[in-house]
Amino acid sequence: MQRGKFLTIEGTEGVGKSTNLTFVRDWLVARGIEVIVTREPGGTPLAEEVRSLLLSKRDEPVDETAELLLVFAARAQHLTQLIKPALARGAWVLSDRFTDATYAYQGGGRGLSKATINQLEQLVQGDLRPDLTLILDIDVELGLNRARQRGELDRFESETIGFFERVRAAYRQRAESSPLRYALVDAGKTLPEVQAEIDSLLSKLLA
Amino acid sequence: MQRGKFLTIEGTEGVGKSTNLTFVRDWLVARGIEVIVTREPGGTPLAEEVRSLLLSKRDEPVDETAELLLVFAARAQHLTQLIKPALARGAWVLSDRFTDATYAYQGGGRGLSKATINQLEQLVQGDLRPDLTLILDIDVELGLNRARQRGELDRFESETIGFFERVRAAYRQRAESSPLRYALVDAGKTLPEVQAEIDSLLSKLLA
Repeated sequence: MQRGKFLTIEGTEGVGKSTNLTFVRDWLVARGIEVIVTREPGGTPLAEEVRSLLLSKRDEPVDETAELLLVFAARAQHLTQLIKPALARGAWVLSDRFTDATYAYQGGGRGLSKATINQLEQLVQGDLRPDLTLILDIDVELGLNRARQRGELDRFESETIGFFERVRAAYRQRAESSPLRYALVDAGKTLPEVQAEIDSLLSKLLA
Repeated sequence: MQRGKFLTIEGTEGVGKSTNLTFVRDWLVARGIEVIVTREPGGTPLAEEVRSLLLSKRDEPVDETAELLLVFAARAQHLTQLIKPALARGAWVLSDRFTDATYAYQGGGRGLSKATINQLEQLVQGDLRPDLTLILDIDVELGLNRARQRGELDRFESETIGFFERVRAAYRQRAESSPLRYALVDAGKTLPEVQAEIDSLLSKLLA
C-alpha cells in the first residue's frame, strides 16, 4: 500500500483558503483519490477543544509560550489519531493550516524563536512534513477586509495590521526557502486564474 | 523587596496532599507570611480549562506527547500570570503539584523521555525551580484505596497499579538525586508525626 500524500493550505485571513480547499478536494475526488479534509488547530475531538481554547477571546492575557505549546499539543493529537493513520492506509490528507502557520503566526506574528518552533516540530512530527503546501498570498489589508465581512473576529483575527504583515512575510520567506515543497500562489488574481495554477500544481504532484 | 519562596507538594493518589497543603498554608500564615495557594495543572482560568481537558475521561485515546505539551502549556500560563508575579512581590507560592509531577506521571508513569521533559522545563521555566518540594510517599495500594473512597476517578486516577508504582519510583528517585531541594516524607506515619516533620522542614527554610 502506497502512503497517501499530505497537502496543506496556508495564508493570512481572507485569502480564500476555504474556497480553494474545496477546489483541491473536488479535484482529487474527481480522480478517484480518497481524501480526508481536516484543519488545524483541530481535527479530532480533543484537538478541537484545544482550538476553542486558542481562538476564544478572553480577559486573561495568553502567554505566548502557552499558546505555542497548545498549538503543538493539538497537532500531536491530530497526527496520531487522524493524519498518520490516514496516510498509512493510502488516503490523501488535505489540511487547512499546519506547522507553517505556527512559523508564520507564533514565529513571525508573535516573534517566538524559530529554533524553539523547530524543536517542537521535531518532537511532535519527527520527519513528517507536507508533500505540498499551497501558500495563498494577498495584500494584508485587502484580505482582512474580506475576512471582517464574514462576521465576528476570533482572538487571532483581532490582531493588528502589523501582526498580519509579519505573518505574511514569514509565509513568503518559507515559500522562498524551499520552492520544491511550497507553491506561493498570488491570491489577488481572479479565482479562475488561481485555480488554473492550483490545477497545474496538482497535476504535477499526481504525475 | 525580597523574592518569595516557592513550595510544592507532590505525591501519588491518596497520600494526603490536601490535608498537608492546608497545614503548610496555616503554618506560614501564622508567621505573617503572605501565601498564594495554587495547583497544577491549573491556577489561572485558561490553565484550569486545560486541566479539565487533561483530567476528563474520553473515548479518544490521548497521545502521550499531546498530554505532555498540554501540561506545559498550562504551566507556562500559570507561571506568567500567577506564580512569577506573586514571587516577585514577595509572596510565597504553595502549589499542589508542579514539574516533578510531570517527571513522575508523564516520565515515570507513561515512559516519556526525561530529556524531552527537561527540554520543555527549560523552555517554560528557564532557571525557575521550587525552593522546597515535599514528596509525600506512601504504599501505592494503600493510597489508591484512600483515593477511591473519595468518589469517581479522573483519567489519571483510573490508571493501573503498575502505572502508580512507576510514578512513585520516579518521585523517590528525584528526592534521592537532590536531597537539598526535596524532602521525602513518609506519609504512612500518623498525621501528627508527618506534620511534626513538615514543621521542622519549614522552620529550617524560614531560618
